Amino acid sequence: MTRSWWGWGNVEDAVTGAERTALTARVANLLPGADLTAHEPPELTELTVPAARIQAPESLAELASGDLGDRVAHGHGQAFRDVVRTLLGRVDNAPDLVLRPRTEQDVVDVLDWCANSAIAVIPFGGGTSVVGGVEPRDTADYAGAVSLDLGRLNRVVEIDRVSRAARIQAGMLGPDLEQALRPEGLTLRHFPQSFEFSTLGGWLATRAGGHYATVYTHIDDMVESMRVVTPVGISESRRLPGSGAGPSPDRMFLGSEGILGVITEAWMRVQVRPRWRVGASVLFDDYAAAVAATRGIAQSGLFPANCRLLDPVEAFLNAGTPTSGGVLVLGFESADHPVDEPMSWALQICRDHGGRVPDGVRSADAEHDQARTGAADTWRSSFLRMPYQRDALAAQSMIVETFETACTWDRFDELRDAVHAAAAKAFESLGIAGVVTCRFTHVYPDGPAPYFGIYAAGTWGRTAEQWDEIKAAVSQALSSSGGTITHHHAVGRDHRPWYDQQRPEPFAVALRASKSALDPTGILNPGVLIDPAAARP
Amino acid sequence: MTRSWWGWGNVEDAVTGAERTALTARVANLLPGADLTAHEPPELTELTVPAARIQAPESLAELASGDLGDRVAHGHGQAFRDVVRTLLGRVDNAPDLVLRPRTEQDVVDVLDWCANSAIAVIPFGGGTSVVGGVEPRDTADYAGAVSLDLGRLNRVVEIDRVSRAARIQAGMLGPDLEQALRPEGLTLRHFPQSFEFSTLGGWLATRAGGHYATVYTHIDDMVESMRVVTPVGISESRRLPGSGAGPSPDRMFLGSEGILGVITEAWMRVQVRPRWRVGASVLFDDYAAAVAATRGIAQSGLFPANCRLLDPVEAFLNAGTPTSGGVLVLGFESADHPVDEPMSWALQICRDHGGRVPDGVRSADAEHDQARTGAADTWRSSFLRMPYQRDALAAQSMIVETFETACTWDRFDELRDAVHAAAAKAFESLGIAGVVTCRFTHVYPDGPAPYFGIYAAGTWGRTAEQWDEIKAAVSQALSSSGGTITHHHAVGRDHRPWYDQQRPEPFAVALRASKSALDPTGILNPGVLIDPAAARP
Repeated sequence: MTRSWWGWGNVEDAVTGAERTALTARVANLLPGADLTAHEPPELTELTVPAARIQAPESLAELASGDLGDRVAHGHGQAFRDVVRTLLGRVDNAPDLVLRPRTEQDVVDVLDWCANSAIAVIPFGGGTSVVGGVEPRDTADYAGAVSLDLGRLNRVVEIDRVSRAARIQAGMLGPDLEQALRPEGLTLRHFPQSFEFSTLGGWLATRAGGHYATVYTHIDDMVESMRVVTPVGISESRRLPGSGAGPSPDRMFLGSEGILGVITEAWMRVQVRPRWRVGASVLFDDYAAAVAATRGIAQSGLFPANCRLLDPVEAFLNAGTPTSGGVLVLGFESADHPVDEPMSWALQICRDHGGRVPDGVRSADAEHDQARTGAADTWRSSFLRMPYQRDALAAQSMIVETFETACTWDRFDELRDAVHAAAAKAFESLGIAGVVTCRFTHVYPDGPAPYFGIYAAGTWGRTAEQWDEIKAAVSQALSSSGGTITHHHAVGRDHRPWYDQQRPEPFAVALRASKSALDPTGILNPGVLIDPAAARP
Repeated sequence: MTRSWWGWGNVEDAVTGAERTALTARVANLLPGADLTAHEPPELTELTVPAARIQAPESLAELASGDLGDRVAHGHGQAFRDVVRTLLGRVDNAPDLVLRPRTEQDVVDVLDWCANSAIAVIPFGGGTSVVGGVEPRDTADYAGAVSLDLGRLNRVVEIDRVSRAARIQAGMLGPDLEQALRPEGLTLRHFPQSFEFSTLGGWLATRAGGHYATVYTHIDDMVESMRVVTPVGISESRRLPGSGAGPSPDRMFLGSEGILGVITEAWMRVQVRPRWRVGASVLFDDYAAAVAATRGIAQSGLFPANCRLLDPVEAFLNAGTPTSGGVLVLGFESADHPVDEPMSWALQICRDHGGRVPDGVRSADAEHDQARTGAADTWRSSFLRMPYQRDALAAQSMIVETFETACTWDRFDELRDAVHAAAAKAFESLGIAGVVTCRFTHVYPDGPAPYFGIYAAGTWGRTAEQWDEIKAAVSQALSSSGGTITHHHAVGRDHRPWYDQQRPEPFAVALRASKSALDPTGILNPGVLIDPAAARP
């Protein structure tokens, strides 16, 4: 398989042929009149990339690559605006050098060199950031910029079967990690949408949210201990199931997005692979009732594995289900016991709110794993296809992007209305047609994590700027309605303005102070989370 | 009711009469030959307390108390060593002044005055610290020391029924808080052993652990947002059910033990009061099998409300149950659905490991609340009596104290052995007789939180020093065996040596930097978490 240098995933998996024809037809139906002419990505050789400003010293030469494709591929993430810019041949920022450490000592050596030479270091896991987290945008004041690709730190080092924990290197990709745990019957059970192409270190640095709806789904809660290389030394927390000794050291590095140190490995809590699974799709005629039912389940203590409410537009577009009130995709899983009873309680809550279950409950256990062909699985593979389809549509002038938040239940209606109004106003101001979809990716007792999608007919050559305008409008709507600017996509560089609104100022003061103490020369991921100026001495 | 100035809780609730006689007899039986002569606490007027070094300015006069009893009561926590020293008439440290703010603005004004006058400020909730967290021990270099008692900030300000959250002031005591939520059918459901006499702010500042064994039991996980007054401004996080925007601001203040700011209020996640409850006591012949069963339940995803394994000594002493392998106290609760099925799965796991349930499953629902008279309730009231009994025994030369930790399952046997060996060695070196008990207060998929008790026959007048010697030995055993120095009692001043061993140095660097940035004159709780010298400019 060949990783695409400009877009999502593997070249061989791109949307082509009949799939592309069908996708185009669906979009043409949704947005009649859109210009869906397919444009081709440029050749790598057509790109204009500034010459590298730096060279690796002899001692690091074996880690270094100055290859053009490497530099370009490490110069952007996988947001819509990243893909579109690259499709247009725009390489706004590329690192001068890609370095691929083989050991933790290599990481230490790279940081030493960079600290001594005023070179910016951008830690790079799978490069799937959708918030500009890996783009060396603010490095003009540095002697150079290095992309520190952790991909060679890719082993499960140790497994503790008794405590159900595994020591895993930070550069390991999702599928590799699961494959290494599978012979032990174990799983990390962390499946973000980027799963195939993102790494443990990236998940930790950005506080990734997994596929599951409740309880242990955030990577934060699966961490037993972490090792982090900072410019002033290595931080290693103890392997502990819980501790009340001062503020949590791990929680300082979780979400630090590479500005405080480079995560090299972690002891992660793993689980026995689920044996019992049940799933159901609940249809509603009224969206408010669907939200109330979802809230009821979130507050029930039943802890479903899936509890994904698709609004009517999302349900129609991505699950092919026409309803007036949306669809709630429910699932329970366990490695220990059957889960029919919690499903029956959850469905009772749905019925109390007018939910219908026309297809009944789908049941599966590990012995009949292959028999799982329900809607949930269809949805899951469509979920993994979404980024590929996004790329195909991006090359057809479409604006296709998502954004996400979390808010308390009392504010959800207002927040959703504000997002719809802001998007509609932006569409109008741009003179384009578009739709907004919404699903809940996670639900908490005190609120949902709404995930919005935008599908709009853009103008070829201008879709990045058009999206930026829409994004600014909906981000401000989220922020003004009391939501967070990100529930699991991270802050990076793109979310900075709204993150700054949201973050308590004394916390910003403390974060800047921590950054100065741990990274005194300000080399780590400048421009992320805090002003690059605040990061420099 | 009158709060005791020297020991736990209310004077009227002290252990006296028949209860005291029975307690003494039980201990005499356990430790034959112990001198159990009862000593009386001194009169307040007999105490030698240095004159106050400072006076409140006119503007703060209404908040201030220089009353001797107030100063003495605010000069210590509720550890065994605190109670014993006070019993002996030793007032090692007392604040010069007690200040009781009525509003958040009062807190701001106090910090302003103290920052300008080089006065140390020790935030004080209920004063139940068992780690020296409220004792003004390191304030000789300051112009004075103020105990900032938040007790007047004691209201539930707002309830959001839809999101199930309540805005609660930091000085509110557990019972008051529950009483305010009860008319709404809600509960915070956070019941640390100190519940009656500790406050929300204290729980947050010290990362308190609740009574429940799994899932939402730590106060950390119940926080939606917090307001904290720091010397450089007020920090207020957004009310969010979840967020991935940078490192969590709340997690920086949780566990900061008053060194970064003063928590004034928080939006807390509350729950509907449980309606269904089942409980069972499982007896084991073999402790290793009991541990294995407990681990099985912790890793099952069944999420019991109680899962408290008492070792054979603990079971005999505190539950009156003779076994060779210990007793597992199991309970499930729900406001939403019956919980018989998860109990039956959990008991199946116990039976697979040789557990017996001679008394069967006790069931209760809200309509028959008064009928709950099972062993769990007996244990619960004995649990709340323990600190009173500790005080009675402390006055009879007994050394009675607890310490707690958490470790991964693979290390538990070794850790427990190390604790027993260290305690035995300390008893021998002191020439005293003693026993060690162990229970699990919380269980996680990757490890238990063992809670140890010490009962030893001390020497009147020297029990504080004798305990300090035992404490140093067992603390080093915990630390060397990979445990945390505290799972939920906090660090304060007493745990500093082992906390320093455990804390990653780069985290310490960042914490000191955050402290300097938020508290530039170093007035907040000097000596807690970091060196007082590191706190001063």
